[in-house]
Amino acid sequence: MNFRIETDTMGEVQVPAEQYWGAQTERSRNNFKIGPDASMPSEIIDAFAYLKKAAAFTNTDCGVLPADKRDLIAQVCDEILKGDLYKEFPLVIWQTGSGTQSNMNLNEVIANRAHVIQGHKLGEGKTFIHPNDDVNKSQSSNDTYPTAMHIAAYKMVLHTTIPGVEKLRDTLKGKVEAFKNVVKIGRTHLMDATPLTLGQEFSGYVSQLDHSLRAIKNTLSHLSELALGGTAVGTGINTPQGYDVKVAAYIAEFTGLPFVTAENKYEALASHDAMVETHGALKQLAVALMKIANDIRMMASGPRSGIGELIIPANEPGSSIMPGKVNPTQNEAVTMVAAQVMGNDVAITIGGSNGHYELNVFKPLIAVNFLQSARLLGDVCVSFNDHCAVGIEPNYEGIKKHVDNSLMLVTALNPHIGYENAAKIAKKAHKENKSLREVSLELGLLTGEQFDQWVRPEDMIGSLK
Amino acid sequence: MNFRIETDTMGEVQVPAEQYWGAQTERSRNNFKIGPDASMPSEIIDAFAYLKKAAAFTNTDCGVLPADKRDLIAQVCDEILKGDLYKEFPLVIWQTGSGTQSNMNLNEVIANRAHVIQGHKLGEGKTFIHPNDDVNKSQSSNDTYPTAMHIAAYKMVLHTTIPGVEKLRDTLKGKVEAFKNVVKIGRTHLMDATPLTLGQEFSGYVSQLDHSLRAIKNTLSHLSELALGGTAVGTGINTPQGYDVKVAAYIAEFTGLPFVTAENKYEALASHDAMVETHGALKQLAVALMKIANDIRMMASGPRSGIGELIIPANEPGSSIMPGKVNPTQNEAVTMVAAQVMGNDVAITIGGSNGHYELNVFKPLIAVNFLQSARLLGDVCVSFNDHCAVGIEPNYEGIKKHVDNSLMLVTALNPHIGYENAAKIAKKAHKENKSLREVSLELGLLTGEQFDQWVRPEDMIGSLK
Amino acid sequence: MNFRIETDTMGEVQVPAEQYWGAQTERSRNNFKIGPDASMPSEIIDAFAYLKKAAAFTNTDCGVLPADKRDLIAQVCDEILKGDLYKEFPLVIWQTGSGTQSNMNLNEVIANRAHVIQGHKLGEGKTFIHPNDDVNKSQSSNDTYPTAMHIAAYKMVLHTTIPGVEKLRDTLKGKVEAFKNVVKIGRTHLMDATPLTLGQEFSGYVSQLDHSLRAIKNTLSHLSELALGGTAVGTGINTPQGYDVKVAAYIAEFTGLPFVTAENKYEALASHDAMVETHGALKQLAVALMKIANDIRMMASGPRSGIGELIIPANEPGSSIMPGKVNPTQNEAVTMVAAQVMGNDVAITIGGSNGHYELNVFKPLIAVNFLQSARLLGDVCVSFNDHCAVGIEPNYEGIKKHVDNSLMLVTALNPHIGYENAAKIAKKAHKENKSLREVSLELGLLTGEQFDQWVRPEDMIGSLK
Amino acid sequence: MNFRIETDTMGEVQVPAEQYWGAQTERSRNNFKIGPDASMPSEIIDAFAYLKKAAAFTNTDCGVLPADKRDLIAQVCDEILKGDLYKEFPLVIWQTGSGTQSNMNLNEVIANRAHVIQGHKLGEGKTFIHPNDDVNKSQSSNDTYPTAMHIAAYKMVLHTTIPGVEKLRDTLKGKVEAFKNVVKIGRTHLMDATPLTLGQEFSGYVSQLDHSLRAIKNTLSHLSELALGGTAVGTGINTPQGYDVKVAAYIAEFTGLPFVTAENKYEALASHDAMVETHGALKQLAVALMKIANDIRMMASGPRSGIGELIIPANEPGSSIMPGKVNPTQNEAVTMVAAQVMGNDVAITIGGSNGHYELNVFKPLIAVNFLQSARLLGDVCVSFNDHCAVGIEPNYEGIKKHVDNSLMLVTALNPHIGYENAAKIAKKAHKENKSLREVSLELGLLTGEQFDQWVRPEDMIGSLK
Repeated sequence: MNFRIETDTMGEVQVPAEQYWGAQTERSRNNFKIGPDASMPSEIIDAFAYLKKAAAFTNTDCGVLPADKRDLIAQVCDEILKGDLYKEFPLVIWQTGSGTQSNMNLNEVIANRAHVIQGHKLGEGKTFIHPNDDVNKSQSSNDTYPTAMHIAAYKMVLHTTIPGVEKLRDTLKGKVEAFKNVVKIGRTHLMDATPLTLGQEFSGYVSQLDHSLRAIKNTLSHLSELALGGTAVGTGINTPQGYDVKVAAYIAEFTGLPFVTAENKYEALASHDAMVETHGALKQLAVALMKIANDIRMMASGPRSGIGELIIPANEPGSSIMPGKVNPTQNEAVTMVAAQVMGNDVAITIGGSNGHYELNVFKPLIAVNFLQSARLLGDVCVSFNDHCAVGIEPNYEGIKKHVDNSLMLVTALNPHIGYENAAKIAKKAHKENKSLREVSLELGLLTGEQFDQWVRPEDMIGSLK
Repeated sequence: MNFRIETDTMGEVQVPAEQYWGAQTERSRNNFKIGPDASMPSEIIDAFAYLKKAAAFTNTDCGVLPADKRDLIAQVCDEILKGDLYKEFPLVIWQTGSGTQSNMNLNEVIANRAHVIQGHKLGEGKTFIHPNDDVNKSQSSNDTYPTAMHIAAYKMVLHTTIPGVEKLRDTLKGKVEAFKNVVKIGRTHLMDATPLTLGQEFSGYVSQLDHSLRAIKNTLSHLSELALGGTAVGTGINTPQGYDVKVAAYIAEFTGLPFVTAENKYEALASHDAMVETHGALKQLAVALMKIANDIRMMASGPRSGIGELIIPANEPGSSIMPGKVNPTQNEAVTMVAAQVMGNDVAITIGGSNGHYELNVFKPLIAVNFLQSARLLGDVCVSFNDHCAVGIEPNYEGIKKHVDNSLMLVTALNPHIGYENAAKIAKKAHKENKSLREVSLELGLLTGEQFDQWVRPEDMIGSLK
Repeated sequence: MNFRIETDTMGEVQVPAEQYWGAQTERSRNNFKIGPDASMPSEIIDAFAYLKKAAAFTNTDCGVLPADKRDLIAQVCDEILKGDLYKEFPLVIWQTGSGTQSNMNLNEVIANRAHVIQGHKLGEGKTFIHPNDDVNKSQSSNDTYPTAMHIAAYKMVLHTTIPGVEKLRDTLKGKVEAFKNVVKIGRTHLMDATPLTLGQEFSGYVSQLDHSLRAIKNTLSHLSELALGGTAVGTGINTPQGYDVKVAAYIAEFTGLPFVTAENKYEALASHDAMVETHGALKQLAVALMKIANDIRMMASGPRSGIGELIIPANEPGSSIMPGKVNPTQNEAVTMVAAQVMGNDVAITIGGSNGHYELNVFKPLIAVNFLQSARLLGDVCVSFNDHCAVGIEPNYEGIKKHVDNSLMLVTALNPHIGYENAAKIAKKAHKENKSLREVSLELGLLTGEQFDQWVRPEDMIGSLK
Repeated sequence: MNFRIETDTMGEVQVPAEQYWGAQTERSRNNFKIGPDASMPSEIIDAFAYLKKAAAFTNTDCGVLPADKRDLIAQVCDEILKGDLYKEFPLVIWQTGSGTQSNMNLNEVIANRAHVIQGHKLGEGKTFIHPNDDVNKSQSSNDTYPTAMHIAAYKMVLHTTIPGVEKLRDTLKGKVEAFKNVVKIGRTHLMDATPLTLGQEFSGYVSQLDHSLRAIKNTLSHLSELALGGTAVGTGINTPQGYDVKVAAYIAEFTGLPFVTAENKYEALASHDAMVETHGALKQLAVALMKIANDIRMMASGPRSGIGELIIPANEPGSSIMPGKVNPTQNEAVTMVAAQVMGNDVAITIGGSNGHYELNVFKPLIAVNFLQSARLLGDVCVSFNDHCAVGIEPNYEGIKKHVDNSLMLVTALNPHIGYENAAKIAKKAHKENKSLREVSLELGLLTGEQFDQWVRPEDMIGSLK
């Protein structure tokens, strides 16, 4: 491999000749060989591109950066946002906990790429744009990285998580209506109980997802607060007057999202309670999805020896010899994602609680766990929706068999023949493995017509939709 | 011990002669010898008393319970709420996961206590109030226990957690004002950085607590939803028309809290996302408290060989021989509580995600972990406030020493003598372990007067309050 | 309430007149009103009694404590171990994180109780035994509390957890033998699969428990290491020569457990990796129990509309009207305990990782979570064993129905009629909801006799026991 | 993109023309668009290659696979192990929870690659090697995937985690010796305490790592058990006699690791307690590393306003203006990894506890979290070792200043002038911020010579190494 020499305050470093990054990025590559290369998420890189561009605009507005430098910086940021430069960001998550080196990676790439855009050769001559003095102007790693975290997190939640959940919620809501007359056995403690409709059952899932969506949205105001402008320790040293408010407004404009400057910059650098808060709501969503996916796979179990009340789409060959074996593979993806999110929540909790003084240095850890959760939840909702939920159908035969057999229907006889006689019927039916109707007639307690008139599961489903 | 015989549908049971509980409670005592006795929290017992009374009132309003029975039931519930009957509730957390046996414990005690109130002898004759037919009318364990969970949880959060946090927040807010002119060294990565005021630093803690309070309050609307009226599986079978709305109104009246009937009873029985949601916010509070308590104990460390920037109250003899050794014991209680809450969050997450079909059977687990967290957080905020936070004082000498020594102050010279010269001063000062002022003069780069005029930490604390 | 005056280096304190504790205990009561009173576990108090007695014996052997003082101290320790003095230990978990105040509670109670044993009146005159100079001689809170943690933890694991697990394991092992010929349908992805015996299925549970027991036992060597002798910071300052080895030997003798002095006292004070390690194994046990209890309740589900392959004991009235509704209440206790242990593991992990320099100050948190897990696991294994596992019986009818209906049995025809024909049979049977035998005859692919000879589930259960 | 048509039992699928994978892999790509592409770890692919080769050898030995097929399969497996075919494994973690589709991915790629090796064109003609009948012979996804998990996990722990920890342990052990005479102040509760040597302090870290290594090794026997031979449900249906033992021996031979067939195949498919067990030990290691990295960064804090007792290497420019600002970036990577491992442990616990009947379907989740933890821990130990630990040096000046200033040294005067007088000195020194020596002389309690003779920190470090 060919190298060129780049220099920083510690001296010279060999950098791959064709890459835009500089000395500090290269040092980080060498010093942090931990896990796979380039693991810093691309969403963080993009978020940095937004904020570097916004900072350049604000700096120019505030009179501290010439307009031509602003425009060059903005041009490179736009290239990054198009995805053209991802191979220039080789750093890992497990670097300094402030993400300093990724901030420098951006600064270096923007300066060097601008140099090339201006027609110069990489590594030759002094760059017009200085990584620190221009690209990083009015900034510090300590306020840029947390700003990038919020931008990336907010975007992922808004563009991936919420739409995914809403898509699934809407499908399930459609099922509530479609299944509103499908009376089935209820189950508590996994045991047979009084009936309800399949629509009622699915309405519980819709309610869980609706509450999850509200919970997530409740947290977004905290997440919309940006640290930028706090610089090194939260005091905003080295920023022009009004910079923090203005730079947040530019970021809001460029991203189309309602970002504002943080109420308190000391909190914004030293803790990540906003990330903890929103991820707490994502974890609640994981809890809801675990329940929903579990219920559906249990009700779809069979085809002969399970519960057999739902039919789910067959997406892959189960077994060449067992045509009825449709494995609930989408549910398995959902429940695995749910478990991952629950684990990620603990990692974020631990990272989030361990800030010291003016800085929390678990930033990349928190970012990567959050982004993974938010993406996986959104993706898996869409996958589960498209490849399972939309195709769920009642197994009418299985549903009818269970509800008809249920001993619990005897409850309906209480007003007519009294509790004692009803209990007598139920006990005998259970013991002798007979139907309630059969035993009712055997005991001479009522006629077949009376039984058919009084014992109607569809009359036992209550008044609550 | 003397016994009397009580009977249920499975036959006779020996019950301690003087206790009000009946056969089903006694069976549970015998079948679940798991952990300490009587571990079901008293807050759950109280919450049941509220809901049993509310159910009696609603049943009478709906014409299904005579007023004299209502009044007797209400009278016993009031006795329970006064705390007179706690010894009648011997059951453990680790029973059936629906809390059925605690519901029956309440039903049995109310019926038997009413019997005695009416002048009868315990165990003699048929009780006027029937545990199932009267006390449990229009109810099921499946909707009463989750209702009790929400009542107990909401009360604890509102009456213990939030006031505790607010008390601490107010104290720290007072410190922000009191310490607004105390310039100190900032620290990032635990390393010396640019200065800020102690008031600014404390404002970050206030902001964390304010955001935590908002986060908790955002969740309360979900927690205010009550399952009562869903009965066995959520359909509301066996409840009179309008019962669910009315019974929630009575509970709101009796508790003085804004409870409403749940939007969806299927969710309310089969999952506990509301508990998961609010506890997620409690966990965020734990994260904030961990940071705050850690910072304060680090800044108070010493007296000679630590950071030594804060003085905290001495509440206990540290060591008879070391008068300066004030251990940060309140901070230790705070951080232990924080760790407990983080663990409880995982227990609640796991329990909350494992509902099946129409019922979640991790109810007592979820309740007890939630109540412990909410109480400990409130209590520890008050304890930390009263025995530590109110008495925090700056150690002016230590603060001044650190800020005066800091090499980072050299930043202020950049505009006057240029970056290169400033760096030269800093490097020499660090290497030779001298002060910046001393080295500045040695290098002849500026005069003592200039140094004193230009290097002023109080001018480096930025514009952000 | 009557008070007497006790004094420590900070001055006078009012102590309840009749209680043996002294000034420092009382200060802690007043300064730490966090959660319920007297929450420090009695197992810790007992463990302290063992170690105080062992320290007294060792001190006398080393010539630094007169024999009469040793004997008096030992006498009070024996009273504590008999449980006579529990009301003298009012302190809470959430105190100083080194447990200092509980150590002082022991020191004060032993000194004052000895005073009374000698015939003096509580609070009158100087005590013969001094709390610090005698009871605490050659000790520090910093080495006594972690020693008490290990003693209490080891005892609980050995006397409660392991025997409970072994009892359940033995019962399940009996079922493996009893059920070895009960051929049933296997299920993967919750879906019907090839058959196995019920005994084979239960052998998996036995193997899980056996591996858990081995895992727990593997950790005990670390847990047997005692910190005592490290005193304040691990150097053993103020201990006589050979004290650490000797005092561990006395503790081993008094408890009958194989305790040894810790290899490294710095680790033993500053971290609690041994507690983390053993609790990790307890968590593995929780994982195993969750699986076992879930399987059994799913297989016992019904009575009509579930899986219906196992019959479990009916311990409580399910419902007066549904004689077949046996709720799997013991399984619910097991799974709730499992969730609690998983949560406790996180609390212990967080506490265990946050030691600073020479001391970890999350000791009471770690102790209480560990002891709860170890006790609950042991108790719930016994409860589940006695009230569920011993009574588990196959529901032969349900098992036979499932295995006979299974389409998966067609696999057995492959060698006789070829894969293509076998698949044809299975597909048609699934589509038309018929039996394999019926369809085989309809398609004329084999005779009824051939079918009965070739399709025998009992020949499909493999060679692995 | 060009496509070819591949077929499975559900019909035709378009597959990218140049890729070796087949219909089932392609279906999985389309059905599981969850998270980044190709996220199934390469270690799992490699492990499959070992086991496919071992299965082929065993099948041939057992007479069920011709030798020429064995050799072709083995040839492709060797290509995979060389890393030549990674681009043929595009599937994600979040697929079916049994990993079925990754098993099929291997089967398809091996069959098609063998076809090409034989000189045929991809997609033309029938392959000599059949993916199911040959490559997957005597196997099921249900026993191959867990076997691959154990192979990959064991290898990672043995080749990455343990050597990384040992390297760091050895370096720290060297420091114990190097620092054995460096007397420093001890700290408990973060507060000044009695002295110890820096070597003693580091010996605690070595002891933690040694205990972690033992804990990890204790778990490896469980992890060495392989599921292979259990096939679909653990009974070993469709495997030749002796297959399970023999195939484990081949895997042991090919990997050079001591694998054996699992004692119980039902456990091995339906639960992953071995993964839970070993990861529990990895989490203990994370706990230890968190403590060690925290201590070292606190002791290295400064350069002027921190603890300042250690000097750690400067690997990157801290700040161009603050030459002394060496951020503890390696420690930050360590503590972030520790937090990640703690989160992963919860994900694995949840996944591990949710097996149902004969199969656990959280397999890819468990595998990927385990492998990440094991790799990150090993990598970060090496990184921390090479870029921080080896270069740690005492800051003699800072250490001496702290120990000389400490009021705690007054303890040494007790035997000479009595506790009362010593306390008087300490109190006055603290109050007036003077040295103990100064105050001793002022009070006339001893001479300067006596002070210098009696108060010697190096005599207070105890007898425990």
